[in-house]
Amino acid sequence: MTNLPSLEVCLSPALLHLYDTKDTVVVIIDVFRATSTIAAALDNGARCVVPVASVEECISLKDKLDNCITAGERDGKVAPGLQYGNSPLEYPTSFIQHKTLALTTTNGTKLLHMVSDADSIITGSFLNMDAVCAYLIRQNKKVLLACSAWKDRVNIEDSLFAGAVAEKIKEHFTMECDSARMARELYLQSQQYPSILEFVKDSNHYRRLSGFGLQKDLQYCTTPNLHPVVPIYNGKELVVAS
Amino acid sequence: MTNLPSLEVCLSPALLHLYDTKDTVVVIIDVFRATSTIAAALDNGARCVVPVASVEECISLKDKLDNCITAGERDGKVAPGLQYGNSPLEYPTSFIQHKTLALTTTNGTKLLHMVSDADSIITGSFLNMDAVCAYLIRQNKKVLLACSAWKDRVNIEDSLFAGAVAEKIKEHFTMECDSARMARELYLQSQQYPSILEFVKDSNHYRRLSGFGLQKDLQYCTTPNLHPVVPIYNGKELVVAS
Repeated sequence: MTNLPSLEVCLSPALLHLYDTKDTVVVIIDVFRATSTIAAALDNGARCVVPVASVEECISLKDKLDNCITAGERDGKVAPGLQYGNSPLEYPTSFIQHKTLALTTTNGTKLLHMVSDADSIITGSFLNMDAVCAYLIRQNKKVLLACSAWKDRVNIEDSLFAGAVAEKIKEHFTMECDSARMARELYLQSQQYPSILEFVKDSNHYRRLSGFGLQKDLQYCTTPNLHPVVPIYNGKELVVAS
Repeated sequence: MTNLPSLEVCLSPALLHLYDTKDTVVVIIDVFRATSTIAAALDNGARCVVPVASVEECISLKDKLDNCITAGERDGKVAPGLQYGNSPLEYPTSFIQHKTLALTTTNGTKLLHMVSDADSIITGSFLNMDAVCAYLIRQNKKVLLACSAWKDRVNIEDSLFAGAVAEKIKEHFTMECDSARMARELYLQSQQYPSILEFVKDSNHYRRLSGFGLQKDLQYCTTPNLHPVVPIYNGKELVVAS
């Protein structure tokens, strides 16, 4: 009889304290757009991504780190004092290769810093979905899919991604978590739509970001497997997992 | 142009602080089993239900209130010092009519006491689903469907009920809440199953309560509209809304 490791889903950072992250591979999910941008930047050759909580800390890294660019938005605009935004489209190979990206975001980086005792922390998005799935199966350890949400409010796109991963790798894990089942049912429901983008159009984040004119970003971030890397956190930086 | 009131869904008491409950009709949902039992007791003629947070407080009401019976479970058994359990099946008309039911439960009564500034507080379950829907449409006010969850963990059955209500009355409300959409998609997904009971069998609460031998309760609590009353909280007691 096989003893499969468990997989759970946490729908909001405000619920994270209910989960035991010890000896667990935690997947940080912020589809719109932190973890999408991290996958794109690393796949396009960034040396690493340094996730920071505040704009101030991000600015301070500009001079401390070699070949470092600073990025972050607040309310859909590049935050004052930073150089670039949160869009994965801003980081093609021609620009980001060999550079360090210091990145601050509203939700994703906050959650990453909340997890302290995990076995490891990786980041997931549709852009690197299959790579994340393969990694989790290979590790064969307890998994927590942790949604960044929007200021603690549960959101569709992160829950949907958690559900897609849970559904794809369900044979390899024990799933007794109701949130995981709900996320999987959401994913199954989304299969009736022509695309992930169409499914997430009726969501708070879509309305908010498309109001900023970011339709291209939203389309890009919902396209599966354009950037097949697994970003892993070494306590300071996100780098490509070997 | 019609200005419809908003409807939102809160999936866990740990997320309640994110919602503005002022001028709002809050529906407390604890399908397994507090709000199912409340609907059954009131429909079967109980004078009122007094929801209390602790076993001690519940015991103390026995002598304070006229014709009062005390009820509550901890870990699937009648709590020491109380007389009856949390099962709606324990409260037929022949027993509960004209009595006051003092009830303490793990999740539902806790959430009810957390809401302080609402326009009104009612309770919902599959047993009184259509009555709740009709009431919400009639009130034509802002609505929050508040799931009791399980010790703050999001659960399937409360989310599913929230989704059923949201789906049934969606034409009468503005729904820009991602949790409401997720709950609705869960309900739509459940329509592919032969019954609500079958859909919720893969859930933590089903596994836990069926382990206590409570299959009959679970079946009863997932049967729609057996008790078409709207229990409303007057600050002290739940009574049938006029």
